[in-house]
Parts: sequence; structure tokens; C-alpha cells
Amino acid sequence: MKVEKAFELIKDDLKNVEKALIDTISTDVELINKVLTYLLASGGKRLRPAFLTLSSKLCGYEGDKHILLSCIIEYLHTATLLHDDIIDGAKYRRNRPSANHVFGNDVSILCGDFLYSRSYILLAEHAVKRAQVVLAGAALTMSEGEVIQLLKIGNTDITFEDYIKIIKCKTAVLFSAACEMGAVTAGAEEAKCKALADFGTYLGIAFQMSDDILDYMGDPEITGKKLGTDLHESKLTLPIILLLQHCTSDEKTQITEIFAKKDKSDEDLNYIIKLLNDNNIKDKCEELVDEYVTKSLSQLNIFEDCDYKDAIISIANALMKREK
Amino acid sequence: MKVEKAFELIKDDLKNVEKALIDTISTDVELINKVLTYLLASGGKRLRPAFLTLSSKLCGYEGDKHILLSCIIEYLHTATLLHDDIIDGAKYRRNRPSANHVFGNDVSILCGDFLYSRSYILLAEHAVKRAQVVLAGAALTMSEGEVIQLLKIGNTDITFEDYIKIIKCKTAVLFSAACEMGAVTAGAEEAKCKALADFGTYLGIAFQMSDDILDYMGDPEITGKKLGTDLHESKLTLPIILLLQHCTSDEKTQITEIFAKKDKSDEDLNYIIKLLNDNNIKDKCEELVDEYVTKSLSQLNIFEDCDYKDAIISIANALMKREK
Repeated sequence: MKVEKAFELIKDDLKNVEKALIDTISTDVELINKVLTYLLASGGKRLRPAFLTLSSKLCGYEGDKHILLSCIIEYLHTATLLHDDIIDGAKYRRNRPSANHVFGNDVSILCGDFLYSRSYILLAEHAVKRAQVVLAGAALTMSEGEVIQLLKIGNTDITFEDYIKIIKCKTAVLFSAACEMGAVTAGAEEAKCKALADFGTYLGIAFQMSDDILDYMGDPEITGKKLGTDLHESKLTLPIILLLQHCTSDEKTQITEIFAKKDKSDEDLNYIIKLLNDNNIKDKCEELVDEYVTKSLSQLNIFEDCDYKDAIISIANALMKREK
Repeated sequence: MKVEKAFELIKDDLKNVEKALIDTISTDVELINKVLTYLLASGGKRLRPAFLTLSSKLCGYEGDKHILLSCIIEYLHTATLLHDDIIDGAKYRRNRPSANHVFGNDVSILCGDFLYSRSYILLAEHAVKRAQVVLAGAALTMSEGEVIQLLKIGNTDITFEDYIKIIKCKTAVLFSAACEMGAVTAGAEEAKCKALADFGTYLGIAFQMSDDILDYMGDPEITGKKLGTDLHESKLTLPIILLLQHCTSDEKTQITEIFAKKDKSDEDLNYIIKLLNDNNIKDKCEELVDEYVTKSLSQLNIFEDCDYKDAIISIANALMKREK
């Protein structure tokens, strides 16, 4: 199945999620409305709602609770983006000035807090205990992941295992929660809930890896992002970790010095990109993405073939070849 | 009853809360543990746990669920302090350097998020739906209150009603939730839950008012806080709002100019304090605090006299004469 067809299959659901995202903000404070509408109407990829919806339908769900749960998961995701952009000093998000850049850090902190609370009110009112614990647990793990990432800033001795732990916490856990929630909402048997949770974990890891590849080796015209954001923030990600395994010790010294600098120049970035190219790092990274996508898809063996399974596989495969 | 006797009555409960606050952080990330232990072991007044505990006992509760609920409410309170201190650029909290000052804004944002999530996991696991909705609702309202406060920064046209709305949202709602949770935990009838919720609202308003009085007219040796923090942050609080109602129009112009300045001098603060003294603003403020404490206590008429009721009245009255 082509990825366009996969999204076509849940077009109405995603349209309802889009509507719920705005309708459910519900606040009298005009500024909060403005900030959150700015963010939520900026058209993210809605991957988590897509996987939650497809997971629920794969488990035979025919109701509409997945709409609100998708909305909750997107709120949690948006809350973390708001706070992460402050921490990273990000100026852009999804091709537009970031909320912290437009409205200031103070407002962004509070709007993030508002979204967390809105999520938990909705969860308390509408979700079963398991959904509450899984989603609050995912939010907790994401904050832990961000702290672990902070602690590794600029540290070129970071291991591949450290990196996997960080991206598992900060990214994969919410993909996993989305897929598990789909199964839980459908009242699926435990093995299916677990299979979809694991599918989400591996897929989330692959997703973050491909994001980290694009940061050095994507096409800015397609991604809409400047190259080297992670370098400027001194975050050691997959391409650099693999590069450090393959470069000479002199090059490692130079890379370490660059990551330790407060302000990195275009020359620094070009030097790193040249090393990445010379060492074929993109291929090595993509092999790892393939490996994790394959691991994720193998979790789906428990499900019989159907359109929804095809759609999930199609979107997952598209993540491997993603350009933005 | 003397206030010391009131706290003596729930000494063991508060000791258990103190222990639970540290034991329940539960994270493998050492830095999060360090930051939260720094904050939680710094000995706040634990007023919210005290009122939650006394409310539950006033309604005949004999179990131990109030310990965990007290812990949750103190986590939510601490999460808002962490984020508020970043927004205010606060350097001190409870006589010690603030967490943002010691550990940085980034870590403080994430540790606040961690505490929100930890609260909601505990709520999902242990609390009834009503407690979940009330507490998540309180957290939401607090973030709204902080945004409304931000919007009124430096605005000398702020009304008394604006001020009451802000402090009701940012402070009173959590006092109210604490007292209501006590009643809910005890399985009290609706009228008692509502009476304690309203008691908490009025008391929270009185508490914030007295805090705002101390900021200009407290004794720094006793409060441990520098005078005029709200002036430096351009927050228009009760003393200034009442002053603006009583001063001349020339003085209002001057006050407006001072609040609009980026850096306020000692002279500016002394000028304001002199005006406050000349206009007997402290007495006028304290009359309002008395009024709200009286309103809060009248909610307790529904309860028969007992030691727990005496203890609540005693602590509430102590807030009127508080010096720190």
C-alpha cells in the first residue's frame, strides 16, 4: 500500500482529531488560546494520532474514543515541544517561528503546563486507568529522557547505548503509548497490546534516528530546517556517534573541540559534514534505521493481514526513506 | 487552640507526608533526585497537607490515603514554584538559592514537568475520579492564573477584581483542592465537600493577600525575603492596588513610571513604602485579610465543634497575623 493510501484510510479520523485539538483547548484566557491555536494549527505530521487510530482499528475498534485519546497524546507531545524549544533556544518549529520566539519563554512554559493539565483532565474524565497510567508514565519518562540528554551535552564519550536510552525515553515512549492506547481502547487481548507497544517503541527509535540523520544530511529545502541544529546545541546524535567510531583520534580531538565551543561556525559544520560524507556515515545510519523498522514490523506478525496492517507497515516503511 | 497545638495534632501525619515526599520521587536519574530532594527537603510550611489532613479528619476519616494525596498536592505546588521561579527570575526560595539559580532554568523546567507527571501517575493509580479531575483542574487553573498575571504586569489600571481573579486562580484553587480532597477522601456528604472547598478558596485568597502585604511591609529578618520582590517583577498586588485608590494623581503617575522602569532602585522602593505608610495601607490590607479569613471560617459552621475544627480555625487565624 502506498503511504498516501494509508493516510486516506484514516482521513476522516484525522480530520476529527484536527477539530478536537482546537475545540478541546477550552480556556477563557485569550492568550493561551492564541498560543495553542498557533501551535496546533501549524499542521504537524500527526504521526502519533495516525498510529493510535490505525492500532485501534487493527484491533477491530469501531467506536470514536480514539479521537479524544489522539488529541490527548498530541497535547502531551505539543507540551514537550513547547518546553524543549525553550531549553534548546529553538527559533523555528515546523517552518515557522517557534512559540518561545514569538510569545516568549514565560508564556511558553505556562502554555506547556496548561496542555499537560488539559491532557490529564481529559484522561481523568474519559480514559480507563491503564490509559492514564501509560500516558502519565510516558510524560514522566520523556522528562527523564530530556534530563539525561542535557547531562550528555557536548560529551563525545557518549556511547551508542546512551543514545538509544535517550531517544527511547524522549521519543519512542510516546509512539509506544500511542500504539498501546489504540489496542487498549479496542479492548484487545494483552499479547496484542504488548505487540503494539513494542512496535511503537522500535518505530519511535527509528523515527528519532532518521530525524537525527536529516539534521546533518537532509535537504533544507525539503525539511524546512537549517542543517546542524544538533551541532549548535552540542547534542551528540547518531551520525556523530558513528563518526566517532570511525574517525582518526586526531579527528576525534577536533570534533570534541568543536562540540565544546559555545559558538560554532559554518566552517565547523562543513568540516563535520565532510567527515560524515567521507566515512559513509549516512549509509551506516540508514542501516540502523532499517534494522529498527524491521524489528518494529516483526511485532505485527501476531495480527492477520488486513488493510489497517498494510497501512501501518506502509507508514512505518515511509519513515525509513523520509526526507522531512 | 494555639497554632502549635493544632500542628501537634497532626504531627505524625505530617512526618509521614515528609517521608512520602522523598520516597515517592522514584527516579533513576540522579540529577532529578538531587533537584527534587533539594526542594522538598527545604522545609516548606506544608500548609496544604495540613489542611488536607485536618479536613479529612474533620470529616471522620481514619485511614491513611490523605498521606499520598498530601504528597501529590505538594508535588503540584512544588512544580508550579519551579516554573514560577524561572518566570520571575527568582534567586531565592525559602531562604535558600532557588532551584533555577542553582541548577539552571533547563533542569528546573524538566523537573517541574517530572513532578506534574509523577503527581498524575499517583493520582491515576490511587485516587478516585473526582480527586483526579479536581487536582488536574486546579493545576490547569494555576497556569491560567499565571498567564493572566503576566498580562497585567506593570499595568497600574489593574482593578481589585482583576487581582482577586489572579490570586484565586494562582493560589486559592490549590488550597481549595486540598481541603476538598480531605472531605472527598473521607467520603463526606456533598455539602461538607463543598463547604471545605469554599473554606479553602477564601483562605487561599487571604493567604496570598497576606503574602503580598509581607512583600512590602514584612520584616526581612523574619520572612527571610528581601522587600519589594513584587515591585522588581512589576507585579501589581494588593498594597499597590489600594494605594492607587488613595494616592493623588501625581503620585499615581509617579508609581506608574516606577513600575514601568526595567530596573528599580532602592529609592523607588523606599518611595513606595513611604506612600504605603503615609496612607495606612497596611491596616486597609489587613482588614481585607480579616474579611476573607472570616468568610472562610463561616463555611465551617456546618461542622460540629471538635479538636480538628478548632485546629483548622487556629491555623487559619494564625495566617491573619502571620509574620513569615
